[in-house]
Amino acid sequence: MLDGLGDLPVDEFGGKTPLEAADTPTFDNLAKSGITGLMHTISPGIIPGSDTAHLALFGYDPRKVYTGRGPFEAAGIGLNAHSGDIALRANFATINNGIIVDRRAGRIRERTHEIAALINDREIEGVKILFKEGTEHRGALLLRGEDLSPEISGNDPRKEGLLPEKIDAAIPEGEFTAQVLRKLVNQLSKDLPRLDINQERKAMGLPPANYILFRGAGVVPTLLPFTQIHGVDTATCVAGGGFYKGIARLAGMKVIESITGVTGGTNTNLSAKKDTAFSALDDNDFVFLHIKGADNLGHDGDFIGKKKFIERIDDAFSDLIELENIVISITGDHSTPCSIKDHSSDPTPVLISFNGIRCDEVSKFGERPVSRGGLGHIIGTDLSRLVMSFAGRSKKFGA
Amino acid sequence: MLDGLGDLPVDEFGGKTPLEAADTPTFDNLAKSGITGLMHTISPGIIPGSDTAHLALFGYDPRKVYTGRGPFEAAGIGLNAHSGDIALRANFATINNGIIVDRRAGRIRERTHEIAALINDREIEGVKILFKEGTEHRGALLLRGEDLSPEISGNDPRKEGLLPEKIDAAIPEGEFTAQVLRKLVNQLSKDLPRLDINQERKAMGLPPANYILFRGAGVVPTLLPFTQIHGVDTATCVAGGGFYKGIARLAGMKVIESITGVTGGTNTNLSAKKDTAFSALDDNDFVFLHIKGADNLGHDGDFIGKKKFIERIDDAFSDLIELENIVISITGDHSTPCSIKDHSSDPTPVLISFNGIRCDEVSKFGERPVSRGGLGHIIGTDLSRLVMSFAGRSKKFGA
Repeated sequence: MLDGLGDLPVDEFGGKTPLEAADTPTFDNLAKSGITGLMHTISPGIIPGSDTAHLALFGYDPRKVYTGRGPFEAAGIGLNAHSGDIALRANFATINNGIIVDRRAGRIRERTHEIAALINDREIEGVKILFKEGTEHRGALLLRGEDLSPEISGNDPRKEGLLPEKIDAAIPEGEFTAQVLRKLVNQLSKDLPRLDINQERKAMGLPPANYILFRGAGVVPTLLPFTQIHGVDTATCVAGGGFYKGIARLAGMKVIESITGVTGGTNTNLSAKKDTAFSALDDNDFVFLHIKGADNLGHDGDFIGKKKFIERIDDAFSDLIELENIVISITGDHSTPCSIKDHSSDPTPVLISFNGIRCDEVSKFGERPVSRGGLGHIIGTDLSRLVMSFAGRSKKFGA
Repeated sequence: MLDGLGDLPVDEFGGKTPLEAADTPTFDNLAKSGITGLMHTISPGIIPGSDTAHLALFGYDPRKVYTGRGPFEAAGIGLNAHSGDIALRANFATINNGIIVDRRAGRIRERTHEIAALINDREIEGVKILFKEGTEHRGALLLRGEDLSPEISGNDPRKEGLLPEKIDAAIPEGEFTAQVLRKLVNQLSKDLPRLDINQERKAMGLPPANYILFRGAGVVPTLLPFTQIHGVDTATCVAGGGFYKGIARLAGMKVIESITGVTGGTNTNLSAKKDTAFSALDDNDFVFLHIKGADNLGHDGDFIGKKKFIERIDDAFSDLIELENIVISITGDHSTPCSIKDHSSDPTPVLISFNGIRCDEVSKFGERPVSRGGLGHIIGTDLSRLVMSFAGRSKKFGA
């Protein structure tokens, strides 16, 4: 899974995309021995988020199980979410005279677990409050109890220089949840300024984490385990970014917690990632390997960097072609065109390579070449089913 | 409908599939004058059964109407099933000291109607028991009454040398049905050994049909008639296999009961089948023609046989090209690759030929050539709608 792989024509590449312009002998050989096509991760014209995209790719219908980003963020930072919990993303922020002056409290890094400990383990009107810090100013909140609803707005104004927004219910059933969250914010706006670490930050001229902003409320879905849906005994995730590990964890996959040099960024150690994935294949029926960098470079608009990063991946994975009796699929979760610097609805190239497959005539892995491939256009929820079917893991529907 | 038509590359054919390797001037001419594509009968990556595939091809959503094979088997052998009946497949079997020693009672052929008569027309706890014998050791059972559920397991261990399995409910609502079926099995295990024919078989050293195995419970669905869904007045099925006739009957089609030399196998009389279908066109708006052989050869892994059988069909149907004012569609219900010897999820080639159609550049009917055809990739439930629409039989949706 090459995050953000798809792109649009780049003038400087003579109208080719970064992937089309890249020198990718590994991917091209796999395309030659395999079947190729384009994948609309959600459906044509829908711009996927990273969360909805990965849900679809694992075989879940995001329209049924996705209510907000919160649950995936919570899972990503290792909060032990239960099905039915309401989860929100959180930012430690700085408030001054009621105005949010820094949405990230100076991208605070130090001692955020102390802030988290202050928030965690409260109870408000019978609702259990669970909190964990993530990287820098990020954290996630879980509300656990009866009669909760994800249909609430957060208090994050998304811009600085504004008042926090009022936490409100979008439907009457959300009123109790909104009330609990309002009470929590009230409590924290009194408790946070008193923390030692905030006194110290003030003394050092750093913005204190004296407020907390919430957004992205969602209900933690009940997901049938990936293994159960797809007829495999074991499935493992190899990823750098906590967010992707979190989705894999929600899908019931095993997650390899940390790999030397693997960062979830463009400076990641690709060969460590490859070695980890290859050894995971020894005792797993399915290995999900996520590489993030191309997406970051798309968001930065850095088409030369994206092309080079794709070439680095292709090079690091040159012995993919030597794997035997393994169905290999390479794709992205969505396009992140350098000209848009964000996700787009353009479909992502996909290849599936396996012995005896109905290979097509496509010999270059790229957006336009694969559009004539034998897979045609698929949607994200098809992919794992196709892979499992080629691997002989699927049961007949009917008789 | 060329059952099991699709396949995978065969080394001995230089990487071509049996259909690609076959000399098929009739199909190729129809492809030239028509529009072609690939069909995922259920959806990409799903391996269709014969039952679910034909439901989809007739325009029914198998995910909504299919609960098990029983109803289709029952319809196939001519049991007059009512919507709501619970139907199961049955095998006459041989039991010895509680162990199933032959799941097919020596593929018994003779006097099975006597066994069926013994089973048929009982009543257990208010539930009517209907039974009919099929070919050889096969039969079908209907349970008709109130409060019945298809959510039960059968007693067929699927292997010899084992005890019959316990008939159990998969959900609490199935308990009554499971109980009725357990009582029936108990009654039959006493009644069957006493039958004259079984005494005779024992005397002749043949395995007696002294036990009965059930599997594939399903509820007989309510299907809107094919004619009503598709806006035609008359539809007729020409098929050899009882199973396919049964599905057509459930879809409310007329069924031509027997055709000289038509066997439902590779030795079938193709020209008799063609003549029957062509004359059926005189007084029917729609004719469904099913040819089974290619599927059998796929199951046998006989790629040379499959190629030759396809050539025989192409030859027998050479005057298809002369039909005027008839929309012709040729496809399969699923792929049965010779390398897999079973159904696979690989899509099946499809062509639709009609005067004035938006013909594409495909000039050979085969898996890879049609993957670049103008129909693109369709799903099974699209096919009859497309055909009826080309035939001017569809109504506008909207105004």
